[in-house]
Amino acid sequence: MKNKDRPIYLDHNASTPILPAVLQAMLPYLQENFGNPSSAHPYGKTLRKAIERAREQVAQLISCSPDEVYFTSGGTEANNLAIRGVAKARPERRHLVTSVIEHPATSGPCNYLEQSGYRVSRVAVDGRGQVLPEAISQALCQDTALLTVMHANSETGTLQAIAEFSDMAHRVGALVHSDAAQSCGKVKLQVEHEGIDLLSIAGHKLYAPQGVGALFVRRGTPIEALIIGAGHECGLRPGTENVAAIAGLGKACEIAHFSQQEEGLRLVQLRDRLFSRIQEQVPGLALNGHPSQRLPNTLNLRFPGVSGTALLAACPEIAASTGSACHEAGESASAIILAMGIAPQDALGSVRLTLGRGNTSDEIERTADALAQAWSQLVCRTVN
Amino acid sequence: MKNKDRPIYLDHNASTPILPAVLQAMLPYLQENFGNPSSAHPYGKTLRKAIERAREQVAQLISCSPDEVYFTSGGTEANNLAIRGVAKARPERRHLVTSVIEHPATSGPCNYLEQSGYRVSRVAVDGRGQVLPEAISQALCQDTALLTVMHANSETGTLQAIAEFSDMAHRVGALVHSDAAQSCGKVKLQVEHEGIDLLSIAGHKLYAPQGVGALFVRRGTPIEALIIGAGHECGLRPGTENVAAIAGLGKACEIAHFSQQEEGLRLVQLRDRLFSRIQEQVPGLALNGHPSQRLPNTLNLRFPGVSGTALLAACPEIAASTGSACHEAGESASAIILAMGIAPQDALGSVRLTLGRGNTSDEIERTADALAQAWSQLVCRTVN
Repeated sequence: MKNKDRPIYLDHNASTPILPAVLQAMLPYLQENFGNPSSAHPYGKTLRKAIERAREQVAQLISCSPDEVYFTSGGTEANNLAIRGVAKARPERRHLVTSVIEHPATSGPCNYLEQSGYRVSRVAVDGRGQVLPEAISQALCQDTALLTVMHANSETGTLQAIAEFSDMAHRVGALVHSDAAQSCGKVKLQVEHEGIDLLSIAGHKLYAPQGVGALFVRRGTPIEALIIGAGHECGLRPGTENVAAIAGLGKACEIAHFSQQEEGLRLVQLRDRLFSRIQEQVPGLALNGHPSQRLPNTLNLRFPGVSGTALLAACPEIAASTGSACHEAGESASAIILAMGIAPQDALGSVRLTLGRGNTSDEIERTADALAQAWSQLVCRTVN
Repeated sequence: MKNKDRPIYLDHNASTPILPAVLQAMLPYLQENFGNPSSAHPYGKTLRKAIERAREQVAQLISCSPDEVYFTSGGTEANNLAIRGVAKARPERRHLVTSVIEHPATSGPCNYLEQSGYRVSRVAVDGRGQVLPEAISQALCQDTALLTVMHANSETGTLQAIAEFSDMAHRVGALVHSDAAQSCGKVKLQVEHEGIDLLSIAGHKLYAPQGVGALFVRRGTPIEALIIGAGHECGLRPGTENVAAIAGLGKACEIAHFSQQEEGLRLVQLRDRLFSRIQEQVPGLALNGHPSQRLPNTLNLRFPGVSGTALLAACPEIAASTGSACHEAGESASAIILAMGIAPQDALGSVRLTLGRGNTSDEIERTADALAQAWSQLVCRTVN
């Protein structure tokens, strides 16, 4: 498939391309700078320096200290480490609070702990996908080891009021974890300001490579390792470091730090233009998610009277999805959309369009028109 | 540091450079072929194809079926998944058999299980680093869930008689895991022939990138996931796949499949030349490990009357190590060498020289002479 023949990529919440500058930062460690960062000789020292530089770059993006950043193989592992690692280190507390709209990388570890005897409270969301603060407050208790709520939802982009939840959690001695796979690098995120004790980052959602992530762990937080082995990452994440990918993640965080605000404004404009241009042509179109408290790149739309899967199938010039790529099998309504109180038959009409650095305003107009036209043909076919 | 000024790299058991052909196989997935392999659109399908191609390449190298290969973030994770995953899936058996010379990525999970109530038998090795079959036989019992013995030791290169151990283990219904991080790609390894049920592979030990590995799991083997999340890798290893690194691992396995025998013969010649040339100049030099049942690239030598650390420090033109890079801190005798019955003061004189595809015969001669000269100066200094 030649580049010019490829569909317009509007699936950045599934995975982002690697930025050229990020690849440039990685290449030395895929070529001449090989070796093991634990080695005492010059090859090792060069790699160690690259890892520590990247740690500073990640720390700068989320406003923490570099020694609070631990590299992992990705967001899923970071979430597992955070949730199960804290539970293991605080055996005196046997309760978790989470939400009903978490990614399987969070709900999975919570379910796992539930099967081993933990009590898990899963807090509901409102019609715009926001976790209800009153519900968090009611769920928290003196037995709560950890509150884990995602920073932004991957399907709707809705942002959560983590700072507010953190205050409540800390009041009962619970720690706070947030999966920021979707928001880190897209919106300003300061762990100190939001009272977050553990934060998960996934490289391939912010223009760094797949197979790398990071977990912020506030100094002094009780946590045990998930993977066991040698002493890498202070023993919290053993295994020879993935130096090239770590260098890439560092560079991507640096780029996000300096440009996410400007890029966010550009994306909001494109996104809102996309919304209004489709809206003009599709009566009854609705937005899934919060109108303003939302990731700048995310537009999740409900098309009336059609299925999202059929709509996308009728638009081969667009690469988008009906929900999270991690559960792409079969045509069933998204649990995230259903949790917001949308009726199943309406939820099936959802399409997620997630923009990124490569998208142009020309692409946005073509996308809007293609979707509107395909919708109109599908609806006609259904009516006749 | 310019390439020509760099020390001669003789630390391939710590980490290998990425072969240019491997990088070429990765680059499309670091550049134009981005996206999420779980996505239904063309971007996703291209990536899915790359993963399945790599799975075939890994399978071909170790003579298994592609659907028995699961990608992980590296060897450490593969070992954890194998050992803890099998233990979890066979709760009726509460005993493990392992050896005293395992890497922390194996001994760590064994210790962890021991702390949670498992009985662990750690079998001794002989003076050449080989695990004693009689000891394996004595340790195995009807309660043994898993036998886990490394395929080749990272420090001495000594190969283990896994096929023999497998027969014994299977007779009592125990499963067999082997950490082949060091041997895979260096010597012929056929899981079927050796009766191995689970085999760990680490990318960065066979000229693939860091941050990727694989676990062979024989079809029908009871095993549970270590990391919990979405359904990737049949649910055994959730998390968006590291496509570029997986493609690289596949290519590295393909290259090993077609050239490991020839390259092994070349390395044995270089290695043995290195040994004899040092031996000519260093009376009392001794070999750690098995004289023939050994990785073709590994030469672990005991220099009399000096410390290995001091010797390497006196040879800045060589990048080698005194043991595993994963425990490079402080100057203490290697537990692997001590386990072979070498006296601590002698063990301290050990230096591990591990050759690879880039090494030339000129480098080998320079290395031999540099080590011999440095040894002679150090010994003189000690005597005077």
